[in-house]
Amino acid sequence: MSDYITIRVRGYHIDQHGQVHDRAHTEFLEEARWTLFENFNAIDFFSKLDLALTIVSNHINYRRPCFLNDTLEIHTRVMRIGKASCKMEQKIFLEGTDTVIVDATNIFVLTDKRNYEAIQIEGSAREKLEQLASSS
Amino acid sequence: MSDYITIRVRGYHIDQHGQVHDRAHTEFLEEARWTLFENFNAIDFFSKLDLALTIVSNHINYRRPCFLNDTLEIHTRVMRIGKASCKMEQKIFLEGTDTVIVDATNIFVLTDKRNYEAIQIEGSAREKLEQLASSS
Amino acid sequence: MSDYITIRVRGYHIDQHGQVHDRAHTEFLEEARWTLFENFNAIDFFSKLDLALTIVSNHINYRRPCFLNDTLEIHTRVMRIGKASCKMEQKIFLEGTDTVIVDATNIFVLTDKRNYEAIQIEGSAREKLEQLASSS
Amino acid sequence: MSDYITIRVRGYHIDQHGQVHDRAHTEFLEEARWTLFENFNAIDFFSKLDLALTIVSNHINYRRPCFLNDTLEIHTRVMRIGKASCKMEQKIFLEGTDTVIVDATNIFVLTDKRNYEAIQIEGSAREKLEQLASSS
Repeated sequence: MSDYITIRVRGYHIDQHGQVHDRAHTEFLEEARWTLFENFNAIDFFSKLDLALTIVSNHINYRRPCFLNDTLEIHTRVMRIGKASCKMEQKIFLEGTDTVIVDATNIFVLTDKRNYEAIQIEGSAREKLEQLASSS
Repeated sequence: MSDYITIRVRGYHIDQHGQVHDRAHTEFLEEARWTLFENFNAIDFFSKLDLALTIVSNHINYRRPCFLNDTLEIHTRVMRIGKASCKMEQKIFLEGTDTVIVDATNIFVLTDKRNYEAIQIEGSAREKLEQLASSS
Repeated sequence: MSDYITIRVRGYHIDQHGQVHDRAHTEFLEEARWTLFENFNAIDFFSKLDLALTIVSNHINYRRPCFLNDTLEIHTRVMRIGKASCKMEQKIFLEGTDTVIVDATNIFVLTDKRNYEAIQIEGSAREKLEQLASSS
Repeated sequence: MSDYITIRVRGYHIDQHGQVHDRAHTEFLEEARWTLFENFNAIDFFSKLDLALTIVSNHINYRRPCFLNDTLEIHTRVMRIGKASCKMEQKIFLEGTDTVIVDATNIFVLTDKRNYEAIQIEGSAREKLEQLASSS
């Protein structure tokens, strides 16, 4: 599943050099992930199972600067579902172009909300994540 | 009680005109309020009573611009404790000067954490807030 | 002109009591203002005149709590254009309802970007602001 | 050089599960980096050379959850200075313990502020970064 949101760069997204700062990019990436989950009703779904999607790592490459009033597309894909973790890739493009501003790889686990421990990804939880992954 | 914290202006606090944006000032004011509450152990205290300090209004005046690498002092005072609300004043100064960058007035209530309803400020809750107010 | 944006409440918008915190509301209000300005091409317009829209005060009332996964509508109206300042009102509603979560009044001035001083609102700058105000 | 700042976890740093969210951790890490640079007067130093410290990647591992009212220590070290890039490691600990909450690796370059292009790290710029690295 590839999905994207668009965000307009505002004055509070840029730093003293006029470039979008990494705090803003982190917000853009996070908002894009939540939007994808929501499009598949995944947050409610896991919440009813007492599970939370928990990020365990992200690796972000800042490829090019971007500036005030740029419009960005943030694309998100679920790439691989392992026994206990799930890999998600994201790219931020200048709207309507192939120009990559940022790319990122995130690893997620499913944690039990009562003890914060990671669980095996199986059964209906696995099926839900496969829905997200297979729709690309 | 007057109390203050200091904060250094970073690149992500300023906008395209080089001035600290109001989102950043909101963060500075909020951090200063929490620090004051904490200095009096007020958060834990109210939490044990199943009460939360809830802001119902703030009125913020931006008096002068401030810039990258400025150091700011954020001062906070509890001014008046009414039957059901509490008034708090805050000022942001350039460090070590009388130059006011921002002043703000906040109204708080105490809410019951189980139903989000405001309660009368009385008994030990009132005494705790008076501790904050009287120590100026 | 009344205009609105919608925002979905995420996990990072809420505090320990499950309510949207005031830092998040400040972000929502700010994003709504920029979107309105942009809809009228006002940012570019003033920038070419070496002018910036600068907030001098905001007064925010938090009327009701709102929670994770709520969708909010943030409405923005230019209300009155004085000789040297401009008043803007904003309301945050639960989507599709008349339930007011937050209302806010903001005062803006136009400042000269070279010296940060407020100028008289007249000529083409006044006409542009009147466009925003009259389209309601 | 190992250096650290301390930050107290507030209500706006945690998500619906009560854990510090990754947006907040990004803020903590960024503030710690700026503080280190500032301790060595590096921001001014590079600014006078028309250079900016620009992050090109960060890799963040979230090891353990942390919660409201926790106090965190964010440690930052410059590890290796290459021909054109510089590696910096950061760790977030629970205050006064060896419990690692987050670890992160960041790669920086020096960019020319006039064209956003990375330059070779040599001469006085290299010496300044070596000051940061060697003081551990």
